[in-house]
Amino acid sequence: MSGNSIGKLFTVTTFGESHGVALGCIVDGCPPGLEISIEDLQRDLDRRKPGTSRFTTQRKEPDEVEILSGVFEGKTTGTSIGLLIRNTDQRSKDYSKIQDQFRPAHADYTYHHKYGIRDYRGGGRSSARETSMRVAAGAIAKKYLKDRFGIEVKGYLSQLGPIKVENIDWSIVETNPFFCPDASKIPEMEEYMAALNKEGNSVGAKITVVASGVMPGLGEPVFDRLDADLAHALMGINAVKGVEIGDGFGVVEAKGTEHRDEMSPQGFYSNHAGGILGGISSGQDIVAHIALKPTSSIRLPGRSINVSGEDAEVITTGRHDPCVGIRATPIAEAMMAIVLLDQLLRHRGQNADVVVDTPVIPATRD
Amino acid sequence: MSGNSIGKLFTVTTFGESHGVALGCIVDGCPPGLEISIEDLQRDLDRRKPGTSRFTTQRKEPDEVEILSGVFEGKTTGTSIGLLIRNTDQRSKDYSKIQDQFRPAHADYTYHHKYGIRDYRGGGRSSARETSMRVAAGAIAKKYLKDRFGIEVKGYLSQLGPIKVENIDWSIVETNPFFCPDASKIPEMEEYMAALNKEGNSVGAKITVVASGVMPGLGEPVFDRLDADLAHALMGINAVKGVEIGDGFGVVEAKGTEHRDEMSPQGFYSNHAGGILGGISSGQDIVAHIALKPTSSIRLPGRSINVSGEDAEVITTGRHDPCVGIRATPIAEAMMAIVLLDQLLRHRGQNADVVVDTPVIPATRD
Amino acid sequence: MSGNSIGKLFTVTTFGESHGVALGCIVDGCPPGLEISIEDLQRDLDRRKPGTSRFTTQRKEPDEVEILSGVFEGKTTGTSIGLLIRNTDQRSKDYSKIQDQFRPAHADYTYHHKYGIRDYRGGGRSSARETSMRVAAGAIAKKYLKDRFGIEVKGYLSQLGPIKVENIDWSIVETNPFFCPDASKIPEMEEYMAALNKEGNSVGAKITVVASGVMPGLGEPVFDRLDADLAHALMGINAVKGVEIGDGFGVVEAKGTEHRDEMSPQGFYSNHAGGILGGISSGQDIVAHIALKPTSSIRLPGRSINVSGEDAEVITTGRHDPCVGIRATPIAEAMMAIVLLDQLLRHRGQNADVVVDTPVIPATRD
Amino acid sequence: MSGNSIGKLFTVTTFGESHGVALGCIVDGCPPGLEISIEDLQRDLDRRKPGTSRFTTQRKEPDEVEILSGVFEGKTTGTSIGLLIRNTDQRSKDYSKIQDQFRPAHADYTYHHKYGIRDYRGGGRSSARETSMRVAAGAIAKKYLKDRFGIEVKGYLSQLGPIKVENIDWSIVETNPFFCPDASKIPEMEEYMAALNKEGNSVGAKITVVASGVMPGLGEPVFDRLDADLAHALMGINAVKGVEIGDGFGVVEAKGTEHRDEMSPQGFYSNHAGGILGGISSGQDIVAHIALKPTSSIRLPGRSINVSGEDAEVITTGRHDPCVGIRATPIAEAMMAIVLLDQLLRHRGQNADVVVDTPVIPATRD
Repeated sequence: MSGNSIGKLFTVTTFGESHGVALGCIVDGCPPGLEISIEDLQRDLDRRKPGTSRFTTQRKEPDEVEILSGVFEGKTTGTSIGLLIRNTDQRSKDYSKIQDQFRPAHADYTYHHKYGIRDYRGGGRSSARETSMRVAAGAIAKKYLKDRFGIEVKGYLSQLGPIKVENIDWSIVETNPFFCPDASKIPEMEEYMAALNKEGNSVGAKITVVASGVMPGLGEPVFDRLDADLAHALMGINAVKGVEIGDGFGVVEAKGTEHRDEMSPQGFYSNHAGGILGGISSGQDIVAHIALKPTSSIRLPGRSINVSGEDAEVITTGRHDPCVGIRATPIAEAMMAIVLLDQLLRHRGQNADVVVDTPVIPATRD
Repeated sequence: MSGNSIGKLFTVTTFGESHGVALGCIVDGCPPGLEISIEDLQRDLDRRKPGTSRFTTQRKEPDEVEILSGVFEGKTTGTSIGLLIRNTDQRSKDYSKIQDQFRPAHADYTYHHKYGIRDYRGGGRSSARETSMRVAAGAIAKKYLKDRFGIEVKGYLSQLGPIKVENIDWSIVETNPFFCPDASKIPEMEEYMAALNKEGNSVGAKITVVASGVMPGLGEPVFDRLDADLAHALMGINAVKGVEIGDGFGVVEAKGTEHRDEMSPQGFYSNHAGGILGGISSGQDIVAHIALKPTSSIRLPGRSINVSGEDAEVITTGRHDPCVGIRATPIAEAMMAIVLLDQLLRHRGQNADVVVDTPVIPATRD
Repeated sequence: MSGNSIGKLFTVTTFGESHGVALGCIVDGCPPGLEISIEDLQRDLDRRKPGTSRFTTQRKEPDEVEILSGVFEGKTTGTSIGLLIRNTDQRSKDYSKIQDQFRPAHADYTYHHKYGIRDYRGGGRSSARETSMRVAAGAIAKKYLKDRFGIEVKGYLSQLGPIKVENIDWSIVETNPFFCPDASKIPEMEEYMAALNKEGNSVGAKITVVASGVMPGLGEPVFDRLDADLAHALMGINAVKGVEIGDGFGVVEAKGTEHRDEMSPQGFYSNHAGGILGGISSGQDIVAHIALKPTSSIRLPGRSINVSGEDAEVITTGRHDPCVGIRATPIAEAMMAIVLLDQLLRHRGQNADVVVDTPVIPATRD
Repeated sequence: MSGNSIGKLFTVTTFGESHGVALGCIVDGCPPGLEISIEDLQRDLDRRKPGTSRFTTQRKEPDEVEILSGVFEGKTTGTSIGLLIRNTDQRSKDYSKIQDQFRPAHADYTYHHKYGIRDYRGGGRSSARETSMRVAAGAIAKKYLKDRFGIEVKGYLSQLGPIKVENIDWSIVETNPFFCPDASKIPEMEEYMAALNKEGNSVGAKITVVASGVMPGLGEPVFDRLDADLAHALMGINAVKGVEIGDGFGVVEAKGTEHRDEMSPQGFYSNHAGGILGGISSGQDIVAHIALKPTSSIRLPGRSINVSGEDAEVITTGRHDPCVGIRATPIAEAMMAIVLLDQLLRHRGQNADVVVDTPVIPATRD
């Protein structure tokens, strides 16, 4: 299949440009009998949608999703699910200037050279607006994982520019606009963002996503390992430049005795591996971190070229997030959930009749 | 397709266990007319093979590859290419102890719970020995990329445990057993590894891979972006726990003005993006970094469980690399080459008739 | 990918139930720069839509398609194309009876046992109404094939129940409601259908599809041969029970000397092979035939069971086509066009740099 | 994946040319724990291998298969299975003449135009010799289907040239070289083949394959219906020009009342549908028929062209089957088994937690 699809048994295919008629997706392979409602999807869409705080773009995108098929009397039927969000707040005039210019760090130059044509309005297909459909599709995956297997996928902002989160208090993640789990850091973040806005600049961020309750056995070596599929899905989110599983780049300086997660009948002693061994889930929490680059659209002028190959100065004046990472938590959760469900379906396709006598040990020894 | 394949148009499928009869792979979709010989493959296999220095495992694996099909009178025919390496130096007795135990940080526990059965000899399918076939397949991809498009894929060791490479001198990479590009660090690395061996421990490493000469346009948004496919392929290498494109996790603290690679008719001013914008190659060098965990097989005892779920102490006595990263450079190159060729074929499949008037700017402004 | 997608580089994914909110599809991998308009799609949709003659169902389905993405200023951009048709004329009451019964020869029983739940209204996902999206997607493929390569895909009704077409006059195919190419047979067909309607029965049909102007080289042995992919696509049309390429089942009694299409510099002497040799197009017309079973929804009572497994008598009272084959010609054309374009893109992905000196001979010697 | 693979969860990828070093394949996605031995594979390979009667080619191909991986202590491990057959009896001199000529009805001309290069020895990749690997892979699928689910896949020759089989006696199929189920027709077939050999000509054939014991629910609408996947797999066998499910082309003249298979709590009244409704198995026998064209390699001269595009007379002097259909029964069985297992794994991946209260009715009412 072409590049707008992800997943082999649980497959999500999206379409839509930032300033086009609509965004949509098809979720194929969802098991039947799952109770699903607009509210289940809207909840996550609202978490991602802009304009909810002064730290995100002021565009108004109600992002109201419609379920067009695949759900009958409140339950999935096992057939393909069509989802749709009509675009409403399109100020295309904002973007008229960039028709002939390539904004630095944007996809303008590369789309132009790949396709020879591009919908330049609001970044067209390369806009992060496309991720709304991933969030909607991911909400279905999350629901199935939770309802049938008790698997939960949750994320938080672990770093905003130079500000690193130190304590993880899951109970406050949803109570602040940053998805920050460390109450003590929120005022600092607010201050930092205010200064950044004033400056007209943007900054990067780091997001952490965790899946708990995952059974051992998910992942298909050797190429479609669970970590490889997660890396594919997470690196495929706009602005992501790095993906780590468990300790990630921290393993470089670690010794074998430090890194290995020892086991006992009472559970694992540690989780440096991030819940994946040999590409297969171990029953521990799946932990992934992603690095998001600073928003490329900033109002500080940058040097670039135009479509004729001549020098051009670029100033982006539209309404943009000063830190795309702030709204990325629901997207990262969605991508992890999609991968987990896809791997779960593939796993039971191949291994449904496997009987294992060895007991599964607890995720952590406590 | 199931998990032992990678690539959509240029597809590599592997089989084989560490101590089984043979390792093999099928390379499907290779364009016809490419001159290819055993030597082209053997060169990279020899770079990966163990026993060439005192810093890698002393197993003797000549890794002599045979081309079984798809090449006629020295040229590829466009049909599937079968490759085979017979296993020779198998001391299966070394592993008899681990039949009933799960080695910490290994795939033993997860394979057992996924499949209910495992070939425990030498790690079976989860052994890094499997990557020899990726190297062989990658050599074909590398040859095509270079012969037809002048694209070169090369890598080096950028960090060994705590020792970070500071200068990149490509000319010495192949002259030392570490693939280290910094002559001044080699004695330090030798010393470090000697101490590590004595200690019976292992350590992590970081590898950098670079593709130069890549045309703009490769990569398929939104899910099969070039960076996403690279992340999938690189995270799928044994022991890899992190993948970065360009500045990677360095972007978290970067500001928009610092990160964006400005452009001019004379070329790009910088390459923080690692040659990929919006998931599509920009014409700059493609730069990726990977983190490899310390070897899990060490002779220092570790706490674990056996197949009955009881406490067990594990000591691994076989011959193992104290740092799997040392031999990983050719593997990382192979995976990058496979992804690039796959994306190149997909790109020209869809866009072969695209005409772009805008000039391509140089990769770097100098 | 899951079962609602077809094609590897040119991929069509559909959703929607007969009596749901809407039908839709995503066309992914369409080359950029193709001029496409609603009219291009609507033309074929109108050819398929019901209610245009007294020989098809009297349901009113205007089938007005909307292009939601992937087309900018009248041209495809290379990104995914979203298409949508809202359902309008749904008389769900007609179907309330079949909620608890399995209609013989229908998908009711099998959907029920596969998914445990089904949208019974109008057959839900199993309704031939779904094929409207294939026709819309196929119209895009047809346009590209014709505009860029001069390839034309056209079909006709070759048999209606016992009435076999004898002469092929392409000029009249679009002038009668049967897509019949033989003017002398039309009165007979009209009479036959009138009697059939009176009887309350239905009948089968045979459709022939032909692609002309196809270059040699399309098709990927050994499994994705052009004929194999055509068989997959054509057998996947509702009610199809047989697929033939060229002489089809006629080859069983043929001798080698009769069947082989001899060649000369002036062209092929015959086309028994239907334009495909060894799974690859030969440059001759691609010719396929399909057999469509009689409509299963008829008002004559049939013996069946209900969802409790008890005896039930089924009478279908809705508005149905007495011969589904009559409207199937545009669907068969669409599927052939989708396969050809997919194979064309795959072919040039792998073989774009192949140079062949041998001249291509004419499709037919005359 | 490229064209040499088939199946999504149970995936078979083959390589090898008729006169190359070896033929091989990778079977990926086979469930673990299946007892499998060389004998299980060899049995079907021997049924296909040539030289066992005077009615097939006199080439000696022992076709001894080797299992290289994926099986440990007699059981599959869930990892990829490598299979290999070394070529032995290669008389390449026989084919030297065809290097510069295109044999009519062969793949010579089309491979040449697709790839610009071809291994002409014995037809290279387009030789039916490749199907030996399908038979080996199919034997694994057959074993799993039978051992775990009691599903049996068996075939027979239903027509040899003009001679139609009239009675189906399964007990004699394996006792004659034709796989003919009708004892009364065997002498006629022997006579016909003797005359054909004398004449130097070849003839077509029809094969029927039946799977019994298949549960309802296999097949993924709307594109990967069970019948569509079967059509893909069966049309992909060398020389096949037509595929029918159930009554096949017989449905064209059938009326709705005649065709529909009525149901009762005691079972189905008939099986015109060939066990598939709406693309999903119904629990009845899956019945498919295929038409195989006459062998193209005959010693009677034919008109053709050479690689320079000039007139050429072609006489094929190698050792060839006068009727390729005679050895095709095991191949057709293998392809049906591969499709069924692939669909079974996909089905339980998506629908493993579906509970259906409605009883499954018997395949036939008796």
